[in-house]
Amino acid sequence: MERIKLLQELVIKNQSKILFWVFDGIGGLPHPETGKTELETANIPAIDAFARSASCGGLVPHGAGVTPGSGPGHLSLFGYPLDQFDLPRGVLEVLGAEDVFHGGELVQGVEIQAGDLAMRGNFATLEHRGDKAVISDRRANKIATPESRRVCELLSRELSVEGYEVYVYPGKEHRFALLLRGPGLVGGLSDADPQKSGVPPKPVEAEHPEAERSAALVNEIIAQATRILADEPEANTVLLRGIGAAPKIPTLEELYGIKAAAIATYPMYKGIARLVGMDVLDVGSMEHADEVKALEEAFDDYDFFYLHIKETDGYAHVFDFDGKVGVFESCDPLFKKVTEMGFDVIALTGDHCTPAVLGDHSWHPIPTALWSKTVLGGGVEAFSEREVLRGTMGLRASRDLLPLALAEARRFNKFGA
Amino acid sequence: MERIKLLQELVIKNQSKILFWVFDGIGGLPHPETGKTELETANIPAIDAFARSASCGGLVPHGAGVTPGSGPGHLSLFGYPLDQFDLPRGVLEVLGAEDVFHGGELVQGVEIQAGDLAMRGNFATLEHRGDKAVISDRRANKIATPESRRVCELLSRELSVEGYEVYVYPGKEHRFALLLRGPGLVGGLSDADPQKSGVPPKPVEAEHPEAERSAALVNEIIAQATRILADEPEANTVLLRGIGAAPKIPTLEELYGIKAAAIATYPMYKGIARLVGMDVLDVGSMEHADEVKALEEAFDDYDFFYLHIKETDGYAHVFDFDGKVGVFESCDPLFKKVTEMGFDVIALTGDHCTPAVLGDHSWHPIPTALWSKTVLGGGVEAFSEREVLRGTMGLRASRDLLPLALAEARRFNKFGA
Repeated sequence: MERIKLLQELVIKNQSKILFWVFDGIGGLPHPETGKTELETANIPAIDAFARSASCGGLVPHGAGVTPGSGPGHLSLFGYPLDQFDLPRGVLEVLGAEDVFHGGELVQGVEIQAGDLAMRGNFATLEHRGDKAVISDRRANKIATPESRRVCELLSRELSVEGYEVYVYPGKEHRFALLLRGPGLVGGLSDADPQKSGVPPKPVEAEHPEAERSAALVNEIIAQATRILADEPEANTVLLRGIGAAPKIPTLEELYGIKAAAIATYPMYKGIARLVGMDVLDVGSMEHADEVKALEEAFDDYDFFYLHIKETDGYAHVFDFDGKVGVFESCDPLFKKVTEMGFDVIALTGDHCTPAVLGDHSWHPIPTALWSKTVLGGGVEAFSEREVLRGTMGLRASRDLLPLALAEARRFNKFGA
Repeated sequence: MERIKLLQELVIKNQSKILFWVFDGIGGLPHPETGKTELETANIPAIDAFARSASCGGLVPHGAGVTPGSGPGHLSLFGYPLDQFDLPRGVLEVLGAEDVFHGGELVQGVEIQAGDLAMRGNFATLEHRGDKAVISDRRANKIATPESRRVCELLSRELSVEGYEVYVYPGKEHRFALLLRGPGLVGGLSDADPQKSGVPPKPVEAEHPEAERSAALVNEIIAQATRILADEPEANTVLLRGIGAAPKIPTLEELYGIKAAAIATYPMYKGIARLVGMDVLDVGSMEHADEVKALEEAFDDYDFFYLHIKETDGYAHVFDFDGKVGVFESCDPLFKKVTEMGFDVIALTGDHCTPAVLGDHSWHPIPTALWSKTVLGGGVEAFSEREVLRGTMGLRASRDLLPLALAEARRFNKFGA
């Protein structure tokens, strides 16, 4: 039996309260001068005490060696086995995007909906050779990120397909994502990327008859984009791939019987939370203390809370080791406070690691501590990247954390007699 | 999405250099007198120092409890998920065979090619009862290995199928393997082994029409072998099973974008390496020092090197605990030398364990240390069967080592944004 179906069948409801406290990009690597990681450096007595009473371990987000973006990282953490839900790469890209342009403006609160058609894109260089146009550079000479952002803004202003909304998500260098919203969009479209230079761009093709109208729309987008960008020196066309429609994915309530709320200050994380059916609570500011306040106020109304701290990842992305350490330290008393609110189960974890020495996400196991009154704790002295691996949880797939938490919350029946 | 497809999609190329130093049969078990394993006994200061700076753990070759032969052991180590590549048992047997007879002679350099038809065999005893011939012993009274070898040589001399080459691989006791090479061979053949004694042998049957000619050829081989062996007292027929054609499997370059070279002195390992598309470098002798010299000379020419040390396994197969310890010790300074060559990633590992006290391969986790500048190391004081399990790698599937190494070499893009 598929695991997810088994779990669904075993679910029971009760009055228990579960919290996932998520430090974005939580895990790090040793600082070259001290040999200590971010968590080994941080002075976090409350978190350390929590870890000593918890079952600690490391979460592997998507199998050995895979570095997840925020979309795949969070979906795993929420107990979604990505290999069993057909989430096209374009959808994962949009889920993880920080900004979005619409009509030439940066807009807020755009969240992917079932039926949206999402795709990844490269800006590329099209060159006219005789009477043929060929892709001379699939990455438009890896144009600088601000350049790429300007072109995304331009596209979002000029692209126009009657009856459809077009959203453009800037990425790093030549990368971006694009989302089409409107009636009758379906996936099953081939990539428009020829995968090599010196050949003409490939039109998108429908893999089945129902997708033909969607294919025509995407080809229209490509044709328009090529006209709009005609005068750009490098980024004068787009190559689209990973095109797919956002599926209706089951909510956390449908899968695991939990009414869930998200407490996050950045749009991307609110969007991912809504995708899995969470209510997004109003925090009212960007302050962590206000996130904790929102948690306290909504305590009675939900079974499961996801509280997201963004800044650990933010500092790590700019190689600011001390900045990241500081976020852990400033959150330590807030975390202590939530441990006193009466939760039955608390997980302290992350969506992926972002070591400050790398300045980017990584593939390393995510330091995690799971506490309840029935947890098998022990083995660790503190909460750190290395120390948790001595704990009783061991190495687990990220997607296993939620089932473990639900078990600790006594929300599963026995399997068989 | 299938994991291997996801990895393939994430691959990027760069200038990094990766080494897999493979001690065949690396892991052992405690000596009954000292209570210490082979690696705990060995004096290997350079390897211990390496382990202290590395991410250590244990590799499980094919799931809990499975003892792999050399073929499956190496393929997992090279990142091939065997459950996703249809490698018939006969092909795996041939890949792991040490010797091969052709035309009555031991020959060198025979390597399995796509389209070869490979099969496992038992010598068996056929008895005439009235007008019926029945299998009276499916294992020919487990004839001694030298006897079996003699019969393999005989078969290889006498078997003759026009237009096809026949290769016979001696095994232990009644076991052998056989390979047919020639046009139009396809798999999809039933076993010829009736699985019980007292019944007539079963002819091989084609499972689909395209396999009928191959079935007829294998039945012809069985009939000829039974005539050739008519005067043998015990091994007077053959039972063939696990029959299948060697598929074209993707190369390491196709799967992971790495140009790979193998440094090995024994034919079997060269064969497995060529199967996955590695270049096999000329070592010029059986000396480990010359293997290291070959590595040094080819350093600039490849992305990935597989360096194989056979003798650890060889000594363990003859229960020579001290002999195996001695190989680790004599390789320690050579290993130190390779750590100074400028590799970005080095894995010290094995294809399986061969505890000298067992005298055979085993199912135990393979002691492994993975080093790079970005590895999360720590937790171990030395490199040994038990100590590595305290490291940050934990227990992993063998097939996960290459993805981990490629991640450390920064050869994967992020999954999703």
